[in-house]
Amino acid sequence: MTDIASIETLLAAASAAHAPFAALRPAVRAGLLRRMALALDSAAADLIPIAQQETKLPEARLKGELSRTTFQLRLFADVLLDGAYLEATIDSADPKWPPAPRPDLRRMLLPVGPVVVFAASNFPFAFSVAGGDTASALAAGCPVVLKAHPGHPRLGDRTADVVRAALREGGAPEGTFAIFHGDEAGRAALLDPRIKAGAFTGSTHGGRALFDLASSRPVPIPFYAEMGSVNPVFVTESAARARGAEYLDSYTLGAGQFCTKPGFLFVPESAAEEIELRLVAGILDRAAAPLLNERIATGYSSVLGKLRAHPAIRMIHAGQETGSGPGPTLLGTTAKSLVAQRDELLVECFGPTSVVVRYAGEDELIASARIFAGELTASIHGESGDAIAPQLFAELSERAGRVLWNGWPTGVAVSHAMHHGGPYPSTTSALHTSVGPTSIRRFLRPVCYQSVPQNLLPEALQDANPLDIPRAVDGKPPRR
Amino acid sequence: MTDIASIETLLAAASAAHAPFAALRPAVRAGLLRRMALALDSAAADLIPIAQQETKLPEARLKGELSRTTFQLRLFADVLLDGAYLEATIDSADPKWPPAPRPDLRRMLLPVGPVVVFAASNFPFAFSVAGGDTASALAAGCPVVLKAHPGHPRLGDRTADVVRAALREGGAPEGTFAIFHGDEAGRAALLDPRIKAGAFTGSTHGGRALFDLASSRPVPIPFYAEMGSVNPVFVTESAARARGAEYLDSYTLGAGQFCTKPGFLFVPESAAEEIELRLVAGILDRAAAPLLNERIATGYSSVLGKLRAHPAIRMIHAGQETGSGPGPTLLGTTAKSLVAQRDELLVECFGPTSVVVRYAGEDELIASARIFAGELTASIHGESGDAIAPQLFAELSERAGRVLWNGWPTGVAVSHAMHHGGPYPSTTSALHTSVGPTSIRRFLRPVCYQSVPQNLLPEALQDANPLDIPRAVDGKPPRR
Repeated sequence: MTDIASIETLLAAASAAHAPFAALRPAVRAGLLRRMALALDSAAADLIPIAQQETKLPEARLKGELSRTTFQLRLFADVLLDGAYLEATIDSADPKWPPAPRPDLRRMLLPVGPVVVFAASNFPFAFSVAGGDTASALAAGCPVVLKAHPGHPRLGDRTADVVRAALREGGAPEGTFAIFHGDEAGRAALLDPRIKAGAFTGSTHGGRALFDLASSRPVPIPFYAEMGSVNPVFVTESAARARGAEYLDSYTLGAGQFCTKPGFLFVPESAAEEIELRLVAGILDRAAAPLLNERIATGYSSVLGKLRAHPAIRMIHAGQETGSGPGPTLLGTTAKSLVAQRDELLVECFGPTSVVVRYAGEDELIASARIFAGELTASIHGESGDAIAPQLFAELSERAGRVLWNGWPTGVAVSHAMHHGGPYPSTTSALHTSVGPTSIRRFLRPVCYQSVPQNLLPEALQDANPLDIPRAVDGKPPRR
Repeated sequence: MTDIASIETLLAAASAAHAPFAALRPAVRAGLLRRMALALDSAAADLIPIAQQETKLPEARLKGELSRTTFQLRLFADVLLDGAYLEATIDSADPKWPPAPRPDLRRMLLPVGPVVVFAASNFPFAFSVAGGDTASALAAGCPVVLKAHPGHPRLGDRTADVVRAALREGGAPEGTFAIFHGDEAGRAALLDPRIKAGAFTGSTHGGRALFDLASSRPVPIPFYAEMGSVNPVFVTESAARARGAEYLDSYTLGAGQFCTKPGFLFVPESAAEEIELRLVAGILDRAAAPLLNERIATGYSSVLGKLRAHPAIRMIHAGQETGSGPGPTLLGTTAKSLVAQRDELLVECFGPTSVVVRYAGEDELIASARIFAGELTASIHGESGDAIAPQLFAELSERAGRVLWNGWPTGVAVSHAMHHGGPYPSTTSALHTSVGPTSIRRFLRPVCYQSVPQNLLPEALQDANPLDIPRAVDGKPPRR
């Protein structure tokens, strides 16, 4: 565990790094992100085995995850080079502007300052040390102090070494990135006045506790927590024929330890038995996979145990506990029971368990959709002519950050149009994403310069546009 | 006061209005905003006298404020017609996207749902019933329930009548807008699960209390409070010659009851006496103006009394209390005292009082700039060659939402590049503005649609682009 004196040292360093790091041109920060990506790719042979050891995740998955992580860094570098993310906006002085003459006004986004990031356990690369939160904060121009996840402490330290070396070699200020360990140190960092924002991926309980701390500070700060989600999937009557195997793939991917794992599959009564039989047949072919760590295994057993004991829950297939981990479990219930007893039944079971929910008719389907408050994803399996689809689609759009058609929610593409977020309790801020370029915006604040002379203006707002970035001038669409 | 049963009725109506109001095309909502603007302009002869009576503000000021309010509604209508505010983003399916094939992803912003707005006292039009918070929430597509300010209850009701009639005639769903009265009802609305965001303009104390309520809800919601600010103005040594009269105009505008009133004027010791003399000469020419209401008058006397009694404060000119209100008061102190005793001295005195702060040398100037934590504005009066300007500018950019050069902070243009916000305690969210088109973003959340067929997609994201809005396709800049 990092002691409080050490935390003080790294917060002081992050704070000292803020101004020089913020002052780097976006293209220079892009270079730093690319250096980080290259260094991480080059260190794969070193990092992957440690990750395998600490997380028990298979090599192929970890390699893919590392690729995704470095791809994200490179994508963010492209975003910095493009420069539109700065939202540079120039309104020339206009003596005729109503209702009073307008002075010269120029707006852009500036980094908020040092950010504390809490790493997740289930993505030891993509949502950990060099993951999306770190990448987006650094892209924004904010120094990062990162709380390592105790599930992969050695990997955390080793990844941090690679990141720090890349930043140092690229000329970033000392203090731009630091790692520390321990919950107490994490709380101390979050409460420190030098920290201007926080980001987290993990449980609802943990995320909410930290959000409450962040909001209760004398100076409250934004705290972006990506928390639980049960990612319901709704299969319409007409689509209930040929679906099944992919659901199994999705809910057992990563041993079910994904925030986008489909936790509830709604199927029409008429087709339920056949679907369940097909699912069970598929399960029998699957090897059990180990869970990430002891704490997650204990949590999984406990939640699963409570669900199994519930009178409204039927066991469809009990996963065998093998030496290597729990096999996939399939539970069953009815929409009527789920709607009536949502507080007990609508829980996230983090591991290879999912619940098949039988619904009788479209009214029950819509009533089921309405019990969800805030989800990262919601999916519909349907046919193009389904009369119920528009209403179901509208209900789910209100409740989820991503709505899928004939797809499964695991697999979150790092892409411009991605939104990985959603209404509470899936996150603490429905306005923001933790994946994709717009995640950078979480760590930027606008500032407006009024009648400021050219020599004082940031380059992004100078008349000559030396950064060659798109800018919106006098209300016209942004262009270079 | 609105009773709790009535609050229940109007929250139910707002909640019922959410889906149909959100479903209106942006162009239809633009039409509603224009109708509101026209109706308010047409009702000026009715509204202005009530406003004069209730706020004691002069007619010319109120007329200008109403113009500003309706201009803002029309500007937001233009923003809706343009459509870029939806941030429509389309990523085509790409089998070669790294690290895994990318499905078709389409992102846009959706209204968060019903918003509670707390009206301010000092701008009975521009930050009240039909002011910026209401305009931006309605523009976003969110129904509004508005807590009237007790300082102008009749004007509030009358303005709400005009707004409701315009909305009704334009075909908006019932429940799109409602007004209510009373603090208890305000808290009940803020805590209601049907409310998805809150906005406020007023005191730090009031704003923080409501922010804490919003954050402590079982489902926390964003609460955008625009609160106190002392808006420091720094006059450099070289610029200390010809400034003065405008400062007086700025700090006495609206009897000093502006959130952007310059509360502290930093002047070099060498020029201080001359500047003070000139200011006092100017004050003698000014008539006293009444304050908005009894509560503000009492608060003003109390804060001014404490400042006057402080040993580090020198009276430069004591404002005469006349029948019509307090005359302008000018206090003095030194930068050294202010830095050392900031907790007692750095207070917002809401009314016609400001403090001249004498600094000795540039070190004291920079040290003074650093005591400000979060301000709506900070201003520099300088000459282009000032060697201290870049450092002072950098310090103030960190601390304020708007940085002015050779200007005075009162007068907030409604314009694309405006940012009216700033780090805490000037607001509860440094990322957002309460003036200008980007204020609409406070009430929008992103959603991503994955592989959704054309007939289910919102028009904004359909291939044919029936709304003819700018969209970013495959990472390219937005275009129609």
